[in-house]
Amino acid sequence: MSSAVADKRASGEDSLIARYFKPIATDANAFGLVDDAAILKALGQDIVVTTDAIVEGVHYLASDPPDTIARKALRTNLSDLAAKGATPAGFVLTLALRTADENWLEPFARGLGEDARSFACPLLGGDTVSTPGPVTISITAFGRVREGKMVRRSGARPGDRVMVSGTIGDATLGLDILKDGTIAKVLIGDARGSEMLVARYRVPQPRNVLATAVRDHASAAMDVSDGLAGDLAKLCAASGVTAVVDTPSIPASATAASLLSRGVVGIETLIAGGDDYEILCTVPEARADAFAEAARQAGVAVTDIGTIMAGEGLPRFLDGEGRELVLTRLSHSHF
Amino acid sequence: MSSAVADKRASGEDSLIARYFKPIATDANAFGLVDDAAILKALGQDIVVTTDAIVEGVHYLASDPPDTIARKALRTNLSDLAAKGATPAGFVLTLALRTADENWLEPFARGLGEDARSFACPLLGGDTVSTPGPVTISITAFGRVREGKMVRRSGARPGDRVMVSGTIGDATLGLDILKDGTIAKVLIGDARGSEMLVARYRVPQPRNVLATAVRDHASAAMDVSDGLAGDLAKLCAASGVTAVVDTPSIPASATAASLLSRGVVGIETLIAGGDDYEILCTVPEARADAFAEAARQAGVAVTDIGTIMAGEGLPRFLDGEGRELVLTRLSHSHF
Repeated sequence: MSSAVADKRASGEDSLIARYFKPIATDANAFGLVDDAAILKALGQDIVVTTDAIVEGVHYLASDPPDTIARKALRTNLSDLAAKGATPAGFVLTLALRTADENWLEPFARGLGEDARSFACPLLGGDTVSTPGPVTISITAFGRVREGKMVRRSGARPGDRVMVSGTIGDATLGLDILKDGTIAKVLIGDARGSEMLVARYRVPQPRNVLATAVRDHASAAMDVSDGLAGDLAKLCAASGVTAVVDTPSIPASATAASLLSRGVVGIETLIAGGDDYEILCTVPEARADAFAEAARQAGVAVTDIGTIMAGEGLPRFLDGEGRELVLTRLSHSHF
Repeated sequence: MSSAVADKRASGEDSLIARYFKPIATDANAFGLVDDAAILKALGQDIVVTTDAIVEGVHYLASDPPDTIARKALRTNLSDLAAKGATPAGFVLTLALRTADENWLEPFARGLGEDARSFACPLLGGDTVSTPGPVTISITAFGRVREGKMVRRSGARPGDRVMVSGTIGDATLGLDILKDGTIAKVLIGDARGSEMLVARYRVPQPRNVLATAVRDHASAAMDVSDGLAGDLAKLCAASGVTAVVDTPSIPASATAASLLSRGVVGIETLIAGGDDYEILCTVPEARADAFAEAARQAGVAVTDIGTIMAGEGLPRFLDGEGRELVLTRLSHSHF
């Protein structure tokens, strides 16, 4: 077959897919991306479906390295699966691009493929479309969970402990650095702290290793993507409860804690900022130790930050003296 | 709860989802769209996954009515499920919007909800994000098919009949009308023909009623979205075969046939245009009658347009005298 014929047969989209994405679509049920659809095997379990999109200039910066953009797009979805107690089963990708730029696509596909492998979440299919606007990456990810065992937002009960994984607020500080804000100037002498915050923004660490612990012990769970305060409010609303949070207990990295203690940022910046991709869950008191132990064995720190209470109002955030903090915002919103 | 509290609790995205999409997300496994994920039940079958995105100004016109945009976004995916022999099981939606415009969102959600009901394909979840660019709608749809029975592109064998549903080329003529091209002028006296073509572009009719017939009889299948000629080339490539098409047999609507016979458009316009969303399939000769009869009972015309041949080249399109037509393009491409 002459190359002219090959070019005629393969449209631009097809050759783009064949070149960049076929090599990373190694799962047999992806059919090498040459079919219209993929097969997803439930293996007798429930399929958990989640979808998250990120837009250039809105959810990531045009200057972010393409491989970190790909990883973030996938990891935000993996984070949802983890919070639901599900094991990754695969994902499909929709990519809206202005141009088929090799220098962007090659590292993007490489980063995506590496994460797909390391999280055992194979690329099953996708769609590549042209847009005159910002690059938009939409991923729908699938997980498996024992029938009826998906951990919902709505199961929190009065008396449950409020637990959160990792540290909160690093990503929003990292974004500030990338935007050359206050934090960048304050941390000029602390390259390591600065890099850590930026990395937390660009490449979140979804807590899939906690999925089993969450499934076995949590009464309700979600991932923290829009800000801890607002996300806890959502979890409480879905469960018909409220919460009291011991704000000083909220886990912060050493860098974030230092910025906080020096008054460079307030606690609201950390708990109303987004992009943490930690797990927020509620655990019945009798299971709190078992959950913490299971998390420890999985290698992830979890912290008890408060208590679920009967009632309907917004969660209250108390300072070290038990006084309620007044928050002007709980999370960020794009509209 | 005061409205100030309610506003504080619900971010802009949440209230947008609650207002427009929660009312149409009636499936129990969508959890009223208040969770991070939905549940999809495989019911002991294979889950077929397909994803398609449409971009304002690229795949539809900004002036298209919002309800038809929603229907088209869903129907392009339903069309893929039909071609794979699968029964719709649900979908998730990602919507990238510049603004939360009620006059656009209300009819969009209404059209989407009506189609979700009429095709028994419930909205399971989604993500709404802000974009400074064109509206982008990405849908991932799910179907169920008996284990191992998804109809692939790769099963065509020499001797199989090439069959296509409905009529080919109407949608591309409809697009020409909407862009105020030649066809609009030629059809000034034919409002009915003109409206039919536009409707075919704006609201495709996915052939889900043919899914069972395709599953039971077709050796290979795909939907025609990028142009019959190019899509047949893809099917042949995936199957390692080629085809000969009797071009005059290709089904055209009365309006398209008239434009063709008057020389207003050439056959290439019809078979290399996109957006048909008909089913293209190959059927072993011994099953061709049974397939046609099953399609008839489903109320959809199918037409035998050619033969699968051994070999590797591009499909050949012959005219009424058996001479090969020279096509300068097989389909449209966005890159």
